[in-house]
Amino acid sequence: MAPDDDATARRLTVVDQALRLFAEKGYEATSVDEIAEAAGISRRTFFRQFRSKEDVVFADHESQLTQAREFLAAAQGDPWDAVCEAVVAVFERFTQWRELAARRYRVVRQVPALREREIVTVFRYERLFTDYLREQLRGRSDLALVQFTAAVTATHNYLLRRMVRGESDATAADLRSALVAIPRDRRTSAADSDDMIVAVFPRDMPSRQVAELLARRLDTLD
Amino acid sequence: MAPDDDATARRLTVVDQALRLFAEKGYEATSVDEIAEAAGISRRTFFRQFRSKEDVVFADHESQLTQAREFLAAAQGDPWDAVCEAVVAVFERFTQWRELAARRYRVVRQVPALREREIVTVFRYERLFTDYLREQLRGRSDLALVQFTAAVTATHNYLLRRMVRGESDATAADLRSALVAIPRDRRTSAADSDDMIVAVFPRDMPSRQVAELLARRLDTLD
Repeated sequence: MAPDDDATARRLTVVDQALRLFAEKGYEATSVDEIAEAAGISRRTFFRQFRSKEDVVFADHESQLTQAREFLAAAQGDPWDAVCEAVVAVFERFTQWRELAARRYRVVRQVPALREREIVTVFRYERLFTDYLREQLRGRSDLALVQFTAAVTATHNYLLRRMVRGESDATAADLRSALVAIPRDRRTSAADSDDMIVAVFPRDMPSRQVAELLARRLDTLD
Repeated sequence: MAPDDDATARRLTVVDQALRLFAEKGYEATSVDEIAEAAGISRRTFFRQFRSKEDVVFADHESQLTQAREFLAAAQGDPWDAVCEAVVAVFERFTQWRELAARRYRVVRQVPALREREIVTVFRYERLFTDYLREQLRGRSDLALVQFTAAVTATHNYLLRRMVRGESDATAADLRSALVAIPRDRRTSAADSDDMIVAVFPRDMPSRQVAELLARRLDTLD
């Protein structure tokens, strides 16, 4: 294990103990001293690892964001796929720490200030993905990127929230198929032939009529 | 003018003066007394209208959210369209107060705490739209609603941000066409024949091949 992983694991132990105490005694009623004692560290070590009691609630997000950033920096191939895979990896890590995420959910929904901090934290993922796509897909419609990352992060958060509430057992595979269905801007400035055609028509239109209409429209476009 | 509109107009005058001072002198350096003086009200009246200096920065959002909520409560017809129209109405009001929105943009991007508050405020629109669609479309895929409102609010915020930065002159009509393109969950539990088929294929696939593939797939479905 690399020194960094070790430090992350130690921090996560403190996060875990803190959330356990917050869930048991309430956020306001729990002191930093109690967290430090439960985690077997000194108050001083606590403040070397975290800036504040609030910080400890979201510390695993910092580690998640760093890992997502590193994943994207090393990613090859299609950038839209890379974002989806980064999101699935985040989800998989939260699944491993399911108890921690569930405890945080119970604490955060009772403290409005923490709920606001969570919204801000969640927004940082969206920002990371938008910045990455902008960098990778220069000249592409900026609006398409923004719509994509908004839908992608909303999908992740929706399935995660249901998981921590114990309402669903959505797996990484479920998330992956939900993400694949989100529209991407497939236009490339270089090669128009890569364009995708999207045809929408009523389910009850006779199939031969659809086929003929399409053939006629496509010939006009060709 | 109804008394409520009158009160809203008076509050917006204070907002406008406050943002002008923040933009000129800086947010931290401007006192509530200076804002009250510039707006021609007493310090006491200021604190009857706003809880804090921070509150005044986002006060027009409160009025926007109230108007959007009232619009949706009275809306008839297709709920997806109603959300889009509510978003367009918000955008049109911001366009009228363009100078105010532009001043806020300059202030907010310099004060991290205000930026965080803005993210939280923006999230309240998304939440309002999701709650409305859930109420209107019971039994519909919750994930589809969440993806829709995420993409819709991201689209609005993107065009608004570009407007206040002076980067584009996007009109309400531009926003409306961007919103119409966002996919909706069209399934109805009652009438399957209302379903739409969406076919996606490469632009360079020969049109006859597309038509034949489609006809074959549709016959399988029929």
